[in-house]
Order: sequence, then C-alpha cells, then structure tokens
Amino acid sequence: MDTDLYELDRVIAAAASAESTPAERIAWLDGVADALDAAADELIPLAAGETRLPETPRLRGELARTTFQLRFFAEVLADGAYLDATVDHADPGWPMGPRPDIRRALLPIGPVVVFAASNFPFAFSVAGGDTASALAAGCPVVVKAHPGHPRLSERTGAIVRAALTEAGAPEGIFAVIHGVEAGVEALRHPAVAAASFTGSVPGGRALFDIATARPRPIPFYGELGSVNPVVVLPDAVRARGPEIVAGYLDSFTLGAGQFCTKPGLLLVPAGHGLTEPLRIGIETKPAQPLLNSRITEGFLAGATRLRAHRSVTPISAPDEDPLRPKLFGVSATDFLAGGELLRSECFGPVSLVVEYESTGELLEVLDALEPGLTASLFAQDTEIDAARALLPALTGLAGRLLWNQWPTGVTVTWAQQHGGPYPATTAPTTTSVGAAAISRFLRPVAWQGFPDALLPPAVRSDNPWALPRRVDGKRE
Amino acid sequence: MDTDLYELDRVIAAAASAESTPAERIAWLDGVADALDAAADELIPLAAGETRLPETPRLRGELARTTFQLRFFAEVLADGAYLDATVDHADPGWPMGPRPDIRRALLPIGPVVVFAASNFPFAFSVAGGDTASALAAGCPVVVKAHPGHPRLSERTGAIVRAALTEAGAPEGIFAVIHGVEAGVEALRHPAVAAASFTGSVPGGRALFDIATARPRPIPFYGELGSVNPVVVLPDAVRARGPEIVAGYLDSFTLGAGQFCTKPGLLLVPAGHGLTEPLRIGIETKPAQPLLNSRITEGFLAGATRLRAHRSVTPISAPDEDPLRPKLFGVSATDFLAGGELLRSECFGPVSLVVEYESTGELLEVLDALEPGLTASLFAQDTEIDAARALLPALTGLAGRLLWNQWPTGVTVTWAQQHGGPYPATTAPTTTSVGAAAISRFLRPVAWQGFPDALLPPAVRSDNPWALPRRVDGKRE
Repeated sequence: MDTDLYELDRVIAAAASAESTPAERIAWLDGVADALDAAADELIPLAAGETRLPETPRLRGELARTTFQLRFFAEVLADGAYLDATVDHADPGWPMGPRPDIRRALLPIGPVVVFAASNFPFAFSVAGGDTASALAAGCPVVVKAHPGHPRLSERTGAIVRAALTEAGAPEGIFAVIHGVEAGVEALRHPAVAAASFTGSVPGGRALFDIATARPRPIPFYGELGSVNPVVVLPDAVRARGPEIVAGYLDSFTLGAGQFCTKPGLLLVPAGHGLTEPLRIGIETKPAQPLLNSRITEGFLAGATRLRAHRSVTPISAPDEDPLRPKLFGVSATDFLAGGELLRSECFGPVSLVVEYESTGELLEVLDALEPGLTASLFAQDTEIDAARALLPALTGLAGRLLWNQWPTGVTVTWAQQHGGPYPATTAPTTTSVGAAAISRFLRPVAWQGFPDALLPPAVRSDNPWALPRRVDGKRE
Repeated sequence: MDTDLYELDRVIAAAASAESTPAERIAWLDGVADALDAAADELIPLAAGETRLPETPRLRGELARTTFQLRFFAEVLADGAYLDATVDHADPGWPMGPRPDIRRALLPIGPVVVFAASNFPFAFSVAGGDTASALAAGCPVVVKAHPGHPRLSERTGAIVRAALTEAGAPEGIFAVIHGVEAGVEALRHPAVAAASFTGSVPGGRALFDIATARPRPIPFYGELGSVNPVVVLPDAVRARGPEIVAGYLDSFTLGAGQFCTKPGLLLVPAGHGLTEPLRIGIETKPAQPLLNSRITEGFLAGATRLRAHRSVTPISAPDEDPLRPKLFGVSATDFLAGGELLRSECFGPVSLVVEYESTGELLEVLDALEPGLTASLFAQDTEIDAARALLPALTGLAGRLLWNQWPTGVTVTWAQQHGGPYPATTAPTTTSVGAAAISRFLRPVAWQGFPDALLPPAVRSDNPWALPRRVDGKRE
C-alpha cells in the first residue's frame, strides 16, 4: 500500500539526525547483516516469487553480497580514514598570515532518501549499497521501495528495523515508504539532505530534475544507464576468438541481461570470423523470465526496433520464444550513421556486435558513445601499444576499465568504482559501490579556535578514536 | 570586449584534456605564483583603480594570499594523497566471491569554467582558488572574467598564460573570456565538465540551473550567500562586552562589508548594555567606497529597506554620507516575525543586532536561519555546557564554526572548509578553499585486471610517484 503523506511526514520528521559514533554504527551494520543472513530462507523465496530470479546461485549470492557489503562498511568505519580528519594547529608564521587553530572532519549530511532498484532485490534495494553507505555515514535512511518487489521490501525493511533497534540505533534511523507520490514528496521534503537512485535514464533524470529544482537543491546520486562497450583487438580474436565469444554470450545474458554493466556493444575487427560461433552459441542460451512485465515489454520493444533497423543484421535466429537472448550485428559505418537507437542501452538479454574496419573507425565509434559505467578491452600482449592508444578514449567513457575481463560482476572492495560521467551517473565525482560510496553522505565542517571540550572526538587533540589524521600537513 | 562565440568555441576546443603529471603541474603553479608576485607593482594599482579597494594592506595582502594559494596547491600535489590511490590485488578468498585485481585513482574531470568574483580581484578571480585547484587537478581552465575588473582580469590572464607556457604547460590549458553570453555558452558547452562560481544567490542559482538543465548535467560548485550569525552568550557580554563590540564592528566593516563571511547578524542576550558602545563605535568607522555602482545601489537599497522595517531600530545615526557603515537592532521576537528581509544577506557594511530573551528563543532564531558559510560563538569557559547545547544547531547552519573568533579572514590550510549547505553553496559536500578544494575537479576511475604496462603511474605496482596509497585495505 502506498505511503500516505501524513505518514511520510511522520517518517521524515522522525529521521532527525540523531548523533551516533562510528563504533555504534559498526554494531548496527553487523547486526543488520546477521539478521538478514539469519532470515535467508524466508527472504530468498520471497525474492524469487516477486522477481522471477533463480534462488540459486543468483539470489543466494546476491544476499551474501548484500550482507558482506554491510559488514564491509563496518570495516570502513573501523578504519576511520573516511572521516578525513585534519588538524592544523595555530601557526603565527604561516606564510599568508598568522593561521588560527582549524580542524576539519566529515559529518553525516542528514536524512537520505534511497530509491531502490528492481534488478537487485537485495544488493541495490532496501538493505543495499546506498542504505549501507548512508547508515555507515550516520544518516537516517528512508528507502522508497521498488514496486517490483513490495513484499520483499516490506519484510526486509522490518528485519532491518528490528536489527537496528536491537543494536541500539535511534528510532527514526530507518524507514521504508511505498509509491511514486510518496517518493517524490520525500525528495521534495525540506528535511531531506540527499538522495540516491539506481534505475533508468528517464526515471533518474526526472528525479534529478526534482532534486535540483528544490528551493534548496540537494545532492542527487543517480546511477542511470550504460551501454558498456567491449573492444576486441585483432590478435585477441585470432588467439582466442571462441573463448571471447563464450565469455561475451555468458556476460550479456547473465541475469537475463538485467545488469547495469551488461555489455551492450561488442566492437570487433571486420573479418573476425566469429559470426558463426556467435550464432551457434546464442542458440544454446535459454529464455529466462524478466523481472516484470514493464521490463519485458521494454526489452521486446527494444529488440523489435533493433531488428527493424535498416542497417542491422540479426545474428540470433528469430525465435518462437520472444524471451530468448537476441544478438544483432552492424558495421561501424552503419552504426555511426544509425542514430540514437543503436547507441542506447536496451535492458534485457540483447546486444549488438559492431564491426570496425580500422583503428580510426573504432575511435570514431568510441567518440560517438555516451559515457557509461564500464569499458572493456580484450587484447593480446602483442597489442599493448594499440591498447595504450585506445585508453584515453575508453577512460573518457567510463568509471571502470577492464582488461580481458567482462564487466558484469561488480566486486565490493576498497578500490571499486561504480560510476562515471552522465548518463552513467548524475554525480561523476562519486561511486555507488566500494568504500568511497560513504563519501556521498558526508559533509565537511571546520572548527576554528575551539577548546577540546567542545570539539568532536574526530579532531580532539588526544585523538580518542585513534583515527588516521593529517596534522599540520603531515599524515599520521 | 566580450568574447564572441567563434572565439569561445576555439578556446574550449583548445582546452582539450592534455595529460600532465603532478610534477609538471607543480612547476606550472610555482611559475604562475612567481610571475604574479613579480608583477605586483603593475597589478595592484590596476586592481585599486578598478575595484576602489585600498592598495595597502588589502590588495597587497590579497595578492600574497593568491600566490601563496598557488604554491600551497603545489604542495598538495607533492603530497599526493589527493589522488586517493587504492590498490586491491586479486583475492580468491574474498568473502563475497573471488576478487579481481582492481585499482582506483582520481583523474582530472575535464575542462572547467570558473566564474570569477568581484570582491576578491585576485584571490577569487582569474588566478584565484578555483583556478589554482582546477589547474592543480590537471584540468584546463576557462575563466569568465568579472566585469568589475576587466583590465586587471585581462592582464592577470596574460601573465598566467605566459607563465604556464614558460613552465611547459600545453596550449589551451588556460584562457580568459568576457561577457555574460560567453559565460553562459561556456557553461552549456558539451566539452565542459564542471564549473565553479563565487557571487550572489540569484546569479549563482541561475547558473546552477543552467548547469543542471544541460542534456548532460555537470557539477556546478557555486558559493552563493551567507549571513554568518555570531552568537554571544551572557557571561561573555559581562566579561568582555566592549572587546566583542570592537571586534564585531571591525569584522562587519572590514573591506566595506564586502566579504562572503561578513557577520550579518549579532545575537546577544537582552539587557546586554552594549547599545551605547555599539552606537559610539560605529560612528568611528569611516565610509569606504564600494566595489562598483551595482553593489553600492544594492547596499543602499538594502539598508533603506532595513531602516524602513517596522520592527527594526537604527543603532547607527542617519548620516549625510550614505556609504557610512550601518547598524540596526531588533528583538528576537520581532526578528522571527519580521520575514525574509531580516534573514537575508545584505552585501556591504551593514549588520543587524538581534536581542534574545532566552536560550529557547535563541534556538528558535537559529532554527529560522538559512545555512551559510560560518557560524560563530562567543562564550566564556563558564559557559561550556550552554555552548555545547547550541553546537548542533550551529553545526547544521554552517561549514565553519568559530569559537571566540570573527568569521572574516579565511586562511588557506589543509583543514580549511569554505562551504556549507545551500544557499551557502550548491555543493554541500565540497569546499572552495583549502586542500580539499582540488577534489571538486577530479573523477574516480578504476582499472580492473590491467598489466602494469597499461596502468597510470598512480596505481602501478612499483608506485613510481611514491604516493601514499591504500593497498589491500591497509594504508601505506
């Protein structure tokens, strides 16, 4: 049932910025992770029923990823560097003039609205990465549930709330709301300080426009669309064409192509001789149900438009089962002349093979693409120089570059980067996965001339939290 | 003369993201600083002529601050932590599933448009903090000159360009453009990746709206308005009322009140007995010319509106010279009922003394204020508990908190924070002054599975730049 506006107002009023310490939040995150793991046998069938995703290995793996991520942010808190604590003592000899004592650290930005995604009912939903990183930062979180899995969202939310309460978190630190209107009103609410979103370009852009048009605009961290080009160089085709074909087919059909990192374009040299292996390989990939009827319709419409495009040649056979994965081919020349349709993400198990005649043409294609989350390069050691020449173009296109690896599968680590210039995200300086995701929900404050008794622990002289800090310019 | 659109296109096309190393950019920044210092005797009279600001100590001090800031960002580059270099080696035992080798570092975001301010013709103008931090990040910079000091802007720009060329920087790394239309078109230009601005709320909001409405929105770092409340607690009034009065009068009239950190509100307990010292003190403050006629008109109109407000009492006498500093008083009750005018920044030498009857009333006033750049607290050691109770409200209101100090004067250090929630800035997670200002112009990229031969130096296994890095979760 949709959240009504009285209830929404109550929820956001409750989401007051109750203060907490990193140590307390470690207990919250670990408690939530444990509670979700303990509820796996209840949650996974619920998720399977609402998303049509297979329980094993997919949903079990995704829940493991989700609880790992909660515990990982507890590690980020324990490490403490995320606070960016910096102490500059007074210095009468500072070259631009006497320097006062000034100390800086990051504080929770305030209540955050998280718009959950449909395609990861655990990892990018109610207890997903945005929630984990915002809670880790110390922000109250209001999750706007995705309508694709309302019962799972409600149940996950209840487990998260109970675990937070059990771990001593303040009332109001977490809530789940439902419905488009409640989501939009939450985004407009004066007490809300930031929002995050994972989903489509039109949906994300509409919310971004609302967030930036507020009387007081707030940061909006939207992860929108990505075509995830994969470039294959000639020697790699010669040395391991069939292996690359197999990896490509696995990657773009994984999870029925419903990943934001699905390789939507394979750029191969003309005369590659891989059409037959691609044609044969794609026939072995079974139809899989898509998440819901809206996504199914979008996929079918997109695939139909591609098939009808004058320059596009089908590689996969027309099939009685419309949900079978679909593969099309096009020359780079026709791709460049073929308009927006060929360059746009089509969610679901469909991909486009683009044949380039020369490096120059390959660069033209890359230049014509919009930025995205990933760009991959398959090449042999003999092609290092050619690869190096392509890297500037690929780097401009994506937040994560892959070498002889497929973009699906996004590990949660210190170094992970899941983002990129628009339309990959609305915030190109940030990431939604990995340790740095916490920075989205923190704002810096400096204290000038304060006595220790009034300073927050992060910048107190005795460093009670034993944080790594920069003091008078030196890292400690 | 305004930059025409052909010229603008040429400038932005030239601002290609030429690659450079931090070591090279250290030479650029030091070279620019040296060249500006060497040109002081030419630039300072030019600035004085166009801005009506006194040469000594003001403009000499500001130029020293400006060249110090350029050299400070060279130190930030030498330190290297700004790159946030992170290396995670492959780990088959990673709990969420085998981890690939993945490495992350920050890269220049791309060409930046800097909208210069009027009130700091050096420090927030052509070679100011935004330019210094964007160049340090490795981004080409296009400065939109402020019309208040066009000749100084042109001359500073020529010196900066020559110094950059002399230091070996690529052509196109820096340009100055003129005119509103050129500025707006630059902000809309597809090749521009970010923009920064220092100025008024209406001007900054209009540009923010353009940046976010682009087909591909870009980060817009606007520093807009701030009332900079100063709270004085009763014991402080009793112990050193006259000293606080003197400091307040100095601070709000400094530079003719044309600082973004000017204390626009002084919150004092009722019955403070300071009205007479304020009245006498303000009479000793001379009239100073304002930057230009637009600012003069804005100040006079604002002061006239304040004087005409039904609840406001003049403290300063009506004066024959309309440019004399002006001081008004109001009770907290009337302030709360007095509408937007009393809570808004009025640029120039004018400030408002608000008398509160109780801590509760003081908190109500703080709650009614919009966030800004600073909030200051004057209190005795006997009032630590009362101060602590006010800190959450003050922290919510500002990016920099001051204890028994005045907010004017913004030192450039590792720990400085010059920012705050809207309308202080359009980007509350960032700062425009201090070491962290460089982060605004960097975007993260991760490299997955790459051989050393193709990795950037920041994340290469042999760490050729000797950067502080995080490797497998541990800081090195």
